[in-house]
Amino acid sequence: MTLHSKLTQTLMATAIIAVTGGLHAAEPIQPIEPVKEINLALAELGKKLYFDPRLSKSGFISCNSCHNLSMGGTDNLKTSIGHNWQQGPINAPTVLNSSMNVAQFWDGRAPDLKAQAGGPIANPGEMAFTHKLAVSVLESIPGYVTEFKLAFGEDGIDIDKVTDAVAEFEKTLVTPNSSFDRWLLGAKEAITTNELAGYELFKKSGCVACHNGPALGGTSFQKMGVVEPYEAKSPAEGLSAVTGKDADRFKFKVPTLRNVELTYPYFHDGEAETLTEAVDVMGRLQLNKTFSKDENAQIVAFLKTLTGEQPSFQLPVLPPSSDNTPLPKPFE
Amino acid sequence: MTLHSKLTQTLMATAIIAVTGGLHAAEPIQPIEPVKEINLALAELGKKLYFDPRLSKSGFISCNSCHNLSMGGTDNLKTSIGHNWQQGPINAPTVLNSSMNVAQFWDGRAPDLKAQAGGPIANPGEMAFTHKLAVSVLESIPGYVTEFKLAFGEDGIDIDKVTDAVAEFEKTLVTPNSSFDRWLLGAKEAITTNELAGYELFKKSGCVACHNGPALGGTSFQKMGVVEPYEAKSPAEGLSAVTGKDADRFKFKVPTLRNVELTYPYFHDGEAETLTEAVDVMGRLQLNKTFSKDENAQIVAFLKTLTGEQPSFQLPVLPPSSDNTPLPKPFE
Repeated sequence: MTLHSKLTQTLMATAIIAVTGGLHAAEPIQPIEPVKEINLALAELGKKLYFDPRLSKSGFISCNSCHNLSMGGTDNLKTSIGHNWQQGPINAPTVLNSSMNVAQFWDGRAPDLKAQAGGPIANPGEMAFTHKLAVSVLESIPGYVTEFKLAFGEDGIDIDKVTDAVAEFEKTLVTPNSSFDRWLLGAKEAITTNELAGYELFKKSGCVACHNGPALGGTSFQKMGVVEPYEAKSPAEGLSAVTGKDADRFKFKVPTLRNVELTYPYFHDGEAETLTEAVDVMGRLQLNKTFSKDENAQIVAFLKTLTGEQPSFQLPVLPPSSDNTPLPKPFE
Repeated sequence: MTLHSKLTQTLMATAIIAVTGGLHAAEPIQPIEPVKEINLALAELGKKLYFDPRLSKSGFISCNSCHNLSMGGTDNLKTSIGHNWQQGPINAPTVLNSSMNVAQFWDGRAPDLKAQAGGPIANPGEMAFTHKLAVSVLESIPGYVTEFKLAFGEDGIDIDKVTDAVAEFEKTLVTPNSSFDRWLLGAKEAITTNELAGYELFKKSGCVACHNGPALGGTSFQKMGVVEPYEAKSPAEGLSAVTGKDADRFKFKVPTLRNVELTYPYFHDGEAETLTEAVDVMGRLQLNKTFSKDENAQIVAFLKTLTGEQPSFQLPVLPPSSDNTPLPKPFE
């Protein structure tokens, strides 16, 4: 690259930052930024692991089973199905844009994506495996042995490397370029006047107090049921399970509203089947507001502008097991 | 296209046919041909349906759950996991190259891919849904309503169109360009002398009597246990369940050996865990031959040259449900 073209590029980048900063600086929501600084070999390895059911005892459940990237990064079930068809206690949150969360899981018990990734593998109600067994499976697969070496520059597989790779892949799962983000970036025709009215109502009614930032959520823990108590169908206690503080009971991480059109059903117990219902319950229980039918519809119309470009990649082909690979045990 | 270029193309095509015909005319195995005459809109729709768990009662099981295209078109389990974690009676055969089968299922009870595709949806032990309910789910999803209209040129969804689309997608799932096929097409360096020796042994020992043609199988039904009886772990009776003839008991469709390195475990009951074991059992029970360790290894080396290019496509993004979509019932 010549000095001139370098300079031009730098100037253009500065100009873009200045323009976009100017456009949405006053808004409580910012556009999702494209992914930067990805370790590609590590993310490719993580993608395979994300789709590999051999990380479960049964050989049937992968990360993608409950955080399905064909379906908004969720399973679209109230609560998930685990090993031996066990019913999970909570709604599977979307993996999309989860790198922007202040912490992972509804109760925030994992500080980051890497810490989260090991959880379901060893959870007896989910993938029902152990980290040791999962690693022993991977160590027996020649294709993985090579790919871990390529990605980490050294021999050996351990759970730390496994979760590093899965987390790196998950960092790629952002959804930029929604129509709302195009509007934030200056394309005034990107959303309709009805959708814009929904956004104004969303701000004015106080929804943005918690659903703000690039992900419209994911940055704080709030009590479910501020104005009136929420009758949860789930036994989950929320943040208090992590902090031990009674004041944190029923505080859950505010979910992102990005791609919310795809991530039904809603709330930590999955009891709100539609966006209309979710907006109604949130208004009454959190904001002491009963939205009219038209207001509700406007907010829902706005929420649907938050559907971004879904992750787009080739379905990974997994390296085959060897004669030494421990067999899956689906029915034990 | 000019007349000249058309003519050149025709001449070249003829020359290729002549050359390849000449090269492998004498072999009992032919290369897999690339897919021709695909209805792209129909295949794209079928791909979505193939990955859509909403065709099951639970909303959790899709075609891809047991015929996983990341894993050789199988689930790599002895027998599959169905609704409510039911254990299936038989090993899931690979969907790869299944368009070349004379009939579908181990017992051939479906004449073609289209007839097969409806089976698992309505099987109480698999996806546990009904055709009527599956269609009602699809009819409630605006994205599907449009896409069916685009693909079929008319309004309306029925199970006939659903299975048409899935079958069209499955026609694309061929795996050309394995190293053995490159050898068949004239690239003599594509396989090693050891692999070639394995192929010669495979022919000389009689394996090709059943495992022949482009798919190395899929074209006939043969008794499992010709020389000595096979002690099956599966209750499946084979072809007799279709024909009602006692002479057809324990006759199963000869499975393809294409991508056999990926489609473990083996046999209709999935009881052979490795290729070494499968080759040994086949030799003794079908051919009255006990292969030495070296002979077995040579045949296995040959079999691994049959791994072709795996289907390569973007993970489909499924159209979201609407407020009217019937809810999945995973725990009823």
